[in-house]
Amino acid sequence: MNRSNLPNSAFVDPTGANAEAVHDLAKEVLDQLLTQLETADDRSPLPQESPDLSATIPESSGSPGGLLEDLEKAAEGSMNSAHSGYIGHMDTMPTTISVLGDLVASAVNNNNMLSVEMSPVFSELEVELTERIAAEFGLGPDAGGVLASGGSLANLHALAVARNQMFDVHAEGLAGVDRKPVLFASEVAHTSLQKAAMILGLGTDAVVPVKTDENSRLKPVALERAVERAKRDGRAPFCVVATAGTTTTGNIDPLPAIWDITSEYDLWFHVDAAYGGALIFSKAERDRLDGIEAADSVTFNPQKWCYVAKTCAMALFADVDMLQEDFQIGAPYMRGDDAVPNLGELSVQGTRRAEVLKLWLTFEHLGRDGLDQLIDESYRLTTMIRDRVVEHNALELASRPEMNIVCFQAVPQWCPPEERDDLNSQLQQVLLSEYDLFVSLPTYHDSRWLRVVLLNPFTGEDTIQRLFNGIDAFLDAEKT
Amino acid sequence: MNRSNLPNSAFVDPTGANAEAVHDLAKEVLDQLLTQLETADDRSPLPQESPDLSATIPESSGSPGGLLEDLEKAAEGSMNSAHSGYIGHMDTMPTTISVLGDLVASAVNNNNMLSVEMSPVFSELEVELTERIAAEFGLGPDAGGVLASGGSLANLHALAVARNQMFDVHAEGLAGVDRKPVLFASEVAHTSLQKAAMILGLGTDAVVPVKTDENSRLKPVALERAVERAKRDGRAPFCVVATAGTTTTGNIDPLPAIWDITSEYDLWFHVDAAYGGALIFSKAERDRLDGIEAADSVTFNPQKWCYVAKTCAMALFADVDMLQEDFQIGAPYMRGDDAVPNLGELSVQGTRRAEVLKLWLTFEHLGRDGLDQLIDESYRLTTMIRDRVVEHNALELASRPEMNIVCFQAVPQWCPPEERDDLNSQLQQVLLSEYDLFVSLPTYHDSRWLRVVLLNPFTGEDTIQRLFNGIDAFLDAEKT
Repeated sequence: MNRSNLPNSAFVDPTGANAEAVHDLAKEVLDQLLTQLETADDRSPLPQESPDLSATIPESSGSPGGLLEDLEKAAEGSMNSAHSGYIGHMDTMPTTISVLGDLVASAVNNNNMLSVEMSPVFSELEVELTERIAAEFGLGPDAGGVLASGGSLANLHALAVARNQMFDVHAEGLAGVDRKPVLFASEVAHTSLQKAAMILGLGTDAVVPVKTDENSRLKPVALERAVERAKRDGRAPFCVVATAGTTTTGNIDPLPAIWDITSEYDLWFHVDAAYGGALIFSKAERDRLDGIEAADSVTFNPQKWCYVAKTCAMALFADVDMLQEDFQIGAPYMRGDDAVPNLGELSVQGTRRAEVLKLWLTFEHLGRDGLDQLIDESYRLTTMIRDRVVEHNALELASRPEMNIVCFQAVPQWCPPEERDDLNSQLQQVLLSEYDLFVSLPTYHDSRWLRVVLLNPFTGEDTIQRLFNGIDAFLDAEKT
Repeated sequence: MNRSNLPNSAFVDPTGANAEAVHDLAKEVLDQLLTQLETADDRSPLPQESPDLSATIPESSGSPGGLLEDLEKAAEGSMNSAHSGYIGHMDTMPTTISVLGDLVASAVNNNNMLSVEMSPVFSELEVELTERIAAEFGLGPDAGGVLASGGSLANLHALAVARNQMFDVHAEGLAGVDRKPVLFASEVAHTSLQKAAMILGLGTDAVVPVKTDENSRLKPVALERAVERAKRDGRAPFCVVATAGTTTTGNIDPLPAIWDITSEYDLWFHVDAAYGGALIFSKAERDRLDGIEAADSVTFNPQKWCYVAKTCAMALFADVDMLQEDFQIGAPYMRGDDAVPNLGELSVQGTRRAEVLKLWLTFEHLGRDGLDQLIDESYRLTTMIRDRVVEHNALELASRPEMNIVCFQAVPQWCPPEERDDLNSQLQQVLLSEYDLFVSLPTYHDSRWLRVVLLNPFTGEDTIQRLFNGIDAFLDAEKT
């Protein structure tokens, strides 16, 4: 083909003719990127100024120099979650090998998980690895699953299968169903459930919120009452979602008690373990997930506490054949295969990335020992923070931490309750601007809290010391 | 933190302490990858043997050497779409800069498009760039959109908004709706529409297939009849999907005539331009999309004919405020922003990759001129193949090509019609094993066809010569 309007490095020539130009460009981008990552602690965890970038489509090809400059600006203007003081959200640096795996996946561009023909290696790897992970959760001999680009899609997938299994709507749709299907989840469950219910044609009102206890965990007695009430009201309960690792406080719903209720009422039991699922890799903490083995489906995001580069999530099913029976949409333009299915026919996405590659490489590079240590260490730091909050007379916990999340509030005696939200918002700003610490500021039970997530492997005791120094200095200054 | 169980290069230390180990690993992966890409033409376009990979979760950390070996095996065992003889699917090598952009996006891991706080730069860039692209399609002053990880999600998103806009089901769901909602698309439209209908609770039967003409394009008169019939049957027509670039033959539905019908019946007008949308970047060919400016929504995948690394797709809306009115699900744990929305609240996904980065960089590196040339060149090769098929007395076109796809069949006189499928399947195998050419073998109107997609920038006239040499040699050999 004639490529005279294109820069020499636009594509990698498959005969090697432009190898030098490509190597130069790739090396420059890589060097710039590594330099940024290796100096992450020198910049703010959350830059406050947006770079000036031009979202245009230029007439002709730009220079590599301009590209590098734009890339640098974009990366440095972004949230700096690699910073050891970025402890505000369920985000941190990913494993080195998952980033490099993603590079390979992008480059070969054959990470099209639509069909076996287009992705023979990765399709097989995904089937095998999801089976293994399902086995880690104890989901039984028929279990398996599919990956999804993010946890919201994994929840959507699980609820779609649950809906189709309980009602005969695959071909016919919901318009003919006379009793409204409803599902149950705690009042602090993730909003992706409302989104899934809306998308699935159930409507956001189909998600019945169930009261939580003082530690943000669903109350089984309230669940049973809600199910009974829905039945009396002529609605059709079909599913309960338990959360293992709530977004704001990292608590775990009582899985065994919820399992009992789903058995009694014959409801689908989904566990949203997007965050907490990682505990299966901790010898010391995995029993916190007891009961998950009874789930009909599980959402698990290795993109969070397993440090795999985003996105990497999965929907697991105790009976993976349900994907074929209750979900499959055939693609006649694709050749099938007896041993490995066309994953695009079984998943919410069609074409998607080979996210299994970076997951597999991360397991290989870290090993169980490495994951185990990362999780245990974050518990150690969490306990340290929790104890200091409890001892502090001006601080209050939102709930008893069960994972590596501590959510707390400054409640000094001298501050009237109606001014607490402002005080905590100011404290968050001061921690960022003066102490290079980013903590988040969620709304929880109608007030503002400070939330710390201990994910970054380079966050240490010194970071925690800085956090409490900052809090004390701020409160002292505000008091006077 | 204690990281004694982890290899030194597991994470990039934000103070630079392990820079050397990280550089070594990154450089080795990059060198191996570039070498593979630069020798892509030396391997088969579609390897026939799967490498032996172990999908295990090892007890302890693996060596970088083992990782590199696994990466090499995985990449070399995969579909080799960079090969200039890989002309079988809508897949080829991506732009160099989109791969490098993806690397940066993965590495900073702050490509969390969930919220502005987590992705200030990329959120703004996505809003601006989707507005610009919507303007290219002529969708009007209020147009814009969101990115999605793949075209199936973009279609799902568009149909969700269409459904919610036409029926009041956001909170209430479909169970209360008495007339079944139906949408219309050509009989050869993409199966992601059935999947979307199933997920959305409309059911696969809600997609009414409309007859096509001899060139695989929806027949407007058949559409009008189908809408009338659905109304008579007590169903509720709400949407028509036109396809600009059908999957198998690359044809374009008559957009202006379909627009007329959607106006007359007050139906949502969605154009699935996942593939063909790229024509807006060709001066010579863009008028083939005339009529798309009237669409209520458009699906467009730069991951295909704009050569952006997978995944990169978008759903565009003539009135982007509908995302807020008819789709939004708020996330109370996220801080909002007045100027730029939390994109996770407006899109099917929550957490997702910053796919806008590689799109933006590709525009910058290629420019309009570069995209224009790539598209024009693929038309030139397409015309060449089309003419040779037409001239050939043993070959027959499936439809008149309108894009860079030629779908044809070997129909030699000596081969009885009932053996044609076998003959074409064998021909496909021979082209792969003996001529290093991968063409696909779709089922179309109940028989097997050979399908050529001219995407690879390094496919040339010599490739085409090899294709016809292979066909002629095979037919000569089979005849005797």
